[in-house]
Amino acid sequence: MDRNEIAARTSSLLSALRADRPLVQTITNFVSMDAAANVLLALGAAPAMVHSPEESGEFMRHAGALVVNIGTLSKLWVEGGEAAAAAARMLGKPWVLDPVGVGATKFRNEAVARFLRHRPTVIRGNASEIMAAARVAGLTGDTATPRGVDSANSTDEALASARWLARNSFCTVAATGAVDVVTDGARVVRLANGHELMTRVTALGCALTAVVAAFAAVESDSFVATVAALATYGVVGEMAADAASRPGSYRVAFIDALDAVTGDDIEKRLKVISP
Amino acid sequence: MDRNEIAARTSSLLSALRADRPLVQTITNFVSMDAAANVLLALGAAPAMVHSPEESGEFMRHAGALVVNIGTLSKLWVEGGEAAAAAARMLGKPWVLDPVGVGATKFRNEAVARFLRHRPTVIRGNASEIMAAARVAGLTGDTATPRGVDSANSTDEALASARWLARNSFCTVAATGAVDVVTDGARVVRLANGHELMTRVTALGCALTAVVAAFAAVESDSFVATVAALATYGVVGEMAADAASRPGSYRVAFIDALDAVTGDDIEKRLKVISP
Amino acid sequence: MDRNEIAARTSSLLSALRADRPLVQTITNFVSMDAAANVLLALGAAPAMVHSPEESGEFMRHAGALVVNIGTLSKLWVEGGEAAAAAARMLGKPWVLDPVGVGATKFRNEAVARFLRHRPTVIRGNASEIMAAARVAGLTGDTATPRGVDSANSTDEALASARWLARNSFCTVAATGAVDVVTDGARVVRLANGHELMTRVTALGCALTAVVAAFAAVESDSFVATVAALATYGVVGEMAADAASRPGSYRVAFIDALDAVTGDDIEKRLKVISP
Repeated sequence: MDRNEIAARTSSLLSALRADRPLVQTITNFVSMDAAANVLLALGAAPAMVHSPEESGEFMRHAGALVVNIGTLSKLWVEGGEAAAAAARMLGKPWVLDPVGVGATKFRNEAVARFLRHRPTVIRGNASEIMAAARVAGLTGDTATPRGVDSANSTDEALASARWLARNSFCTVAATGAVDVVTDGARVVRLANGHELMTRVTALGCALTAVVAAFAAVESDSFVATVAALATYGVVGEMAADAASRPGSYRVAFIDALDAVTGDDIEKRLKVISP
Repeated sequence: MDRNEIAARTSSLLSALRADRPLVQTITNFVSMDAAANVLLALGAAPAMVHSPEESGEFMRHAGALVVNIGTLSKLWVEGGEAAAAAARMLGKPWVLDPVGVGATKFRNEAVARFLRHRPTVIRGNASEIMAAARVAGLTGDTATPRGVDSANSTDEALASARWLARNSFCTVAATGAVDVVTDGARVVRLANGHELMTRVTALGCALTAVVAAFAAVESDSFVATVAALATYGVVGEMAADAASRPGSYRVAFIDALDAVTGDDIEKRLKVISP
Repeated sequence: MDRNEIAARTSSLLSALRADRPLVQTITNFVSMDAAANVLLALGAAPAMVHSPEESGEFMRHAGALVVNIGTLSKLWVEGGEAAAAAARMLGKPWVLDPVGVGATKFRNEAVARFLRHRPTVIRGNASEIMAAARVAGLTGDTATPRGVDSANSTDEALASARWLARNSFCTVAATGAVDVVTDGARVVRLANGHELMTRVTALGCALTAVVAAFAAVESDSFVATVAALATYGVVGEMAADAASRPGSYRVAFIDALDAVTGDDIEKRLKVISP
């Protein structure tokens, strides 16, 4: 996909999302619940935070897509996430894994190994997380160690891991950072929008994963859906930086920009890096 | 109650609330905790989020009212909510049930059935939730199916269910939406304040339920307390829309307006629809 | 420490914190997660919310300091907090206890008793909580009863309790309010910055405890670290009040001010009360 095609597809998917208003079942960490819900609502989708094993599988029939984020992990959430992921697969609905902090503890590595068995449609993480997820999957020998939830690696370093993971897990993988890398194993797109202030507001990365799920609910090619989600989000990040220069007001401006962003904004601002 | 009486009672209860600063024990979902706490504080009440079964009943002696919201439900929260509701009944303190997403899963229906046995003072939900709660109570044959946390029905459609539920559960029932309907089985009030942007910010509905509890802490006629809470909230929603037109800044303006709203604002803006 | 020394140390520790960007493992209540994470990020530190017993101890090796806040307590969180506190002690890393609402229920008192055995480096609470924590430690006979999470007492009333607690638990104790009192049993500092609006936004007290941990990660004298944290926070509270006068916009301004605050601001605004 070249710049023109990405801009055109993103613009039309953004319209489709706002028309369809997909319900995204969001199993995410406690820190990001408020941000993820408000990001989805501002963009034009609808969130439903339903995670208990007693109902997370059953609820999937109401949802258009699922996100499972392992940020503030516990046993119960692994169970609830697995039930929902299994239901998503059975119903043929896309689900997106956000392996927050994988590599930092054994518990996280084991949880990611379990989730990979449910074959996520998309995996979205920072560079270190994607490298660690690939290690967990037994696919590469990289030795990146995430520092908490921050990345110690650039996304270009993660490209090889991302490709392996995508090929062997039959999914789309996105490593996001200053440059976002998306691959389905064959295709690769690199996007360069966004702003440093996005890293100064908590949970905007987790909320992005929910946005990927929202786009995947309206576009069956998960590679295209992921590229469109990241392109939109990066452009929104830049629009917000035009309006605010410190993290408190930036967060407000970011939510406003999700509501305001149009296909024209994407056409004007999109930065695609040639491979 | 006619428009004049509602405006006068609301205005005087708002003053009482700000003078008394009631402590509202708030057992609510993870998504809405931040919003509910800030809404209560901005209005002039005080929140206390205490939900564990080990202490939720004991804590009720410190609180003026209780809210139980089943948004991100789990077994432990049903237990903690039941202990608190039982204590509230025993102490003669009002408690308000928010049956988020009831109808969407068996787990939610069973939880609502359990909570109804503890005889809530007020039930607040959107139209679909009120219709589903009435079905759970075995009172009506409506077949509305909630779509996640959104309502697929208008509040006028829910009026019959609301009335049944109020009569048979001996409580006040509020179905909120573009038009808010409140009934205790005999009396009915319909309010038409509020703004569409309220649905674009997460958890403002859940926070409203906490506001109902705060008013119920200072007014023993739960029908009057509920009407006053909804009247205040709707007026605040319109004041915020004068200051902001997108969801990020609207949320900020909404909290500011809760702090700013006066009896005069309510007198000027209140819209009551004749039955 | 006199005013000049406090201003100078605070200013240099603020620079050190921004240079080192310490990772603060934050086991805090659900209401405060968003606020604590954004406060740490805006100030220049990094949050990691990791609380499950399966990983909370193991994760401490990645972190520079730990905070355990008992706001929305449950059995699992006591377990997870104890595992993390034990690991912090073993690794020689500072950990800070926030005994939210201690005194309000037996469950909270027992939890605080357990945490005190893990010897916190710093304890930060409001006046009533510090008095209740001292009672739990069996040290004084004060009979303050916290009203939810608010303080029914002034910090000056809490000074004797704070001193006892500090001496007997070999830690630094901070009772915060209109006047902040800090003591390690020998030294006492009283600070008078801050603004009333800080009490109208949820979780700013809890977030302050996380800020104490961030300063403790870069300064081994926990008394100095605590004084610097409180001095910075109080000055930020005043800067925010210059920019906003209602709680919604004040919260935004507060986060912005954490990002903006400099040593010069502290030098200009710091208010130290002579003993």
